[in-house]
Amino acid sequence: MKFLHTGDWHIGKKLHGFQLLQEQREVFQQMLDTAKKEEVEAIVIAGDLFDRSVPPAEAVSVLNQMFIDMNLTEKIPVLAISGNHDSATRLETGSEWFKQANLYLQTKINEFTFQPITLGNTQFFLLPYFDPIDARLYFSDDTLTTHEKAVERVVEKMKEQFEETKHQVLISHFFVTGSLRSESETGSTVGGLDNVSARVFQDFTYVALGHLHHPEALKSEAVRYSGSLLKYSVSEADQQKGFRIIEIDDEGLLTQQFHPVQPSRDIIVLEEHFSTLTEEEFYLTIKRDQFIYIKLKDTVMLPNAMNRLREIYPYVIGMERVNQSGLLSGIHQTKKEVPTTLAPHKLFSHYFEELTENPLTKQQEQLIASLFEDLQKEVR
Amino acid sequence: MKFLHTGDWHIGKKLHGFQLLQEQREVFQQMLDTAKKEEVEAIVIAGDLFDRSVPPAEAVSVLNQMFIDMNLTEKIPVLAISGNHDSATRLETGSEWFKQANLYLQTKINEFTFQPITLGNTQFFLLPYFDPIDARLYFSDDTLTTHEKAVERVVEKMKEQFEETKHQVLISHFFVTGSLRSESETGSTVGGLDNVSARVFQDFTYVALGHLHHPEALKSEAVRYSGSLLKYSVSEADQQKGFRIIEIDDEGLLTQQFHPVQPSRDIIVLEEHFSTLTEEEFYLTIKRDQFIYIKLKDTVMLPNAMNRLREIYPYVIGMERVNQSGLLSGIHQTKKEVPTTLAPHKLFSHYFEELTENPLTKQQEQLIASLFEDLQKEVR
Repeated sequence: MKFLHTGDWHIGKKLHGFQLLQEQREVFQQMLDTAKKEEVEAIVIAGDLFDRSVPPAEAVSVLNQMFIDMNLTEKIPVLAISGNHDSATRLETGSEWFKQANLYLQTKINEFTFQPITLGNTQFFLLPYFDPIDARLYFSDDTLTTHEKAVERVVEKMKEQFEETKHQVLISHFFVTGSLRSESETGSTVGGLDNVSARVFQDFTYVALGHLHHPEALKSEAVRYSGSLLKYSVSEADQQKGFRIIEIDDEGLLTQQFHPVQPSRDIIVLEEHFSTLTEEEFYLTIKRDQFIYIKLKDTVMLPNAMNRLREIYPYVIGMERVNQSGLLSGIHQTKKEVPTTLAPHKLFSHYFEELTENPLTKQQEQLIASLFEDLQKEVR
Repeated sequence: MKFLHTGDWHIGKKLHGFQLLQEQREVFQQMLDTAKKEEVEAIVIAGDLFDRSVPPAEAVSVLNQMFIDMNLTEKIPVLAISGNHDSATRLETGSEWFKQANLYLQTKINEFTFQPITLGNTQFFLLPYFDPIDARLYFSDDTLTTHEKAVERVVEKMKEQFEETKHQVLISHFFVTGSLRSESETGSTVGGLDNVSARVFQDFTYVALGHLHHPEALKSEAVRYSGSLLKYSVSEADQQKGFRIIEIDDEGLLTQQFHPVQPSRDIIVLEEHFSTLTEEEFYLTIKRDQFIYIKLKDTVMLPNAMNRLREIYPYVIGMERVNQSGLLSGIHQTKKEVPTTLAPHKLFSHYFEELTENPLTKQQEQLIASLFEDLQKEVR
């Protein structure tokens, strides 16, 4: 079995206000070209196909065309799950018809979660992102209070379907304990309850994960993230994005190769003084059609800096001061000390404190936390 | 050829704040039961499957299940188009796969608009709701400035595909000149440009229309609206809702039968005095689990009338005064003189005038009209 492992497409996501649909199409095409050249037997997409539960119509159109290209035009079987960014209900539309064309799209815990798709020597199990409450309902088991316990129970039931003569691949979308986070992954990380430890997956030959955007987020041979196909935050500027091609031979021996992709417009970080950035001699050496993030070394006030930079660098995606945090640069000031991986209600607390110079009361904090929880339930 | 003609499902639509998904499921099930009993060879749905371009997730789920029931479970071919309420892009997701199961879902003008689906002795042409601009782009013809001209051009091209040995049915979603409007149909009715005259359709054996909610909106044998499956406004309280079963024999002879449907919760209008409405002797004779619309005969002030009525009639959907328009009843006051079939910018003008007692200036009116036009383009 030779298959392609990708994930975290986030179709429709914008980068600081800039559309990325063109870039998303480009890297998709590079991936598909490789899939054809390498004659993979399946394409595995490990969740977060869309960036939002209600994506804009153009994003719907782009993803739809990608599925047509892979599955109907190239006739490649596709195995996909929903991630925490997708709406399970919206995404599953049509999935009952897709199966007839070997396009498998699993978005919920139901009987199909436990029916493997068998291709060649391999059984593929499709486990979309879910909340522990979904598992509690499905199994009628109130003890499944964490993602870890829920996934453990799910895997246990999957193992009943394992055939000895086959190898097993799990496609899933969770945070595996010990992995490396990037800034662009948002999730419901309240108290670390969404962690799943890798040992839960030990009986699979390979686990194709989505959720984390760094392709090397987890150092493991058999349990891996593909990483996103594009850079979705400045913190990912140095990462090489791409996808994996995995081979499992009849003895269960695993080989993998990472294939990089490159969009025509990429993220470049410039750490310079304003005077240098606006000097022709300097900026003519820069690929100014790229997304530029600027780290200003200056310590003096620079009125209207962003607008002046934008005249030279049309795709400026942001700016920060690296030498003086208290200085007002006018736009895109980033307080480095707030980790963006915090749960939404914690982020709100930070914001509130910054604005009012008073922390939230215990009661206010609880109210905000439960509001965010309700909101997340609603959009799903 | 024996087929079922329905349309204007508006799945997800609410009636004065009340969910209708349960009622929509009920009348759908009655329709499907009849389809099976009558052994129809196809189900035709003439647009407005959803009520909004971005329907709520539960509505997506309900419609998806209806398609599964009709097409995958009962194996009935389904021919559907999008209406002015649907998002063409969102609705078409999956349509390329659906075809393999004889589910045809046409949402745009493209090559498939002109490729008939042939079932038995009949060629079905699927023409979704579109704006004249779509036709101008498709045909590269700037003269197609109105719906009438655009539909005429489309039909002309369809006729190239007519086979002499077959009969032809058009499935479409427009306002045909001379039809009877209901209050719940919203459309872009600026200056009557969306009218299409029936003579455009004269070469079809039958035209299965959607858009108008009254099943007898158009008095014609061969060009008909099915009407909606549910009542979507109080003005439809007296209409019998349902669907048609159409038969075309080999000689092209047309027979049709209207089949009524009945939801468990229907609209009832009560025209009474407040004292009568709140009298036990009276209200015990009323089916109080129905949607109740109240026309109050009183001419005196009645503080908190709506809340007091809601205690007796839990599904009150609205109230108006029939004897005195100037009296404040507090809630749901309807000024009868503003026709709700007006274009949105005209409605706004009325509202503005009512509020400020001054009409909009010419310039303001133009601004508002163009704003509404932009808005409508955005959501589509």
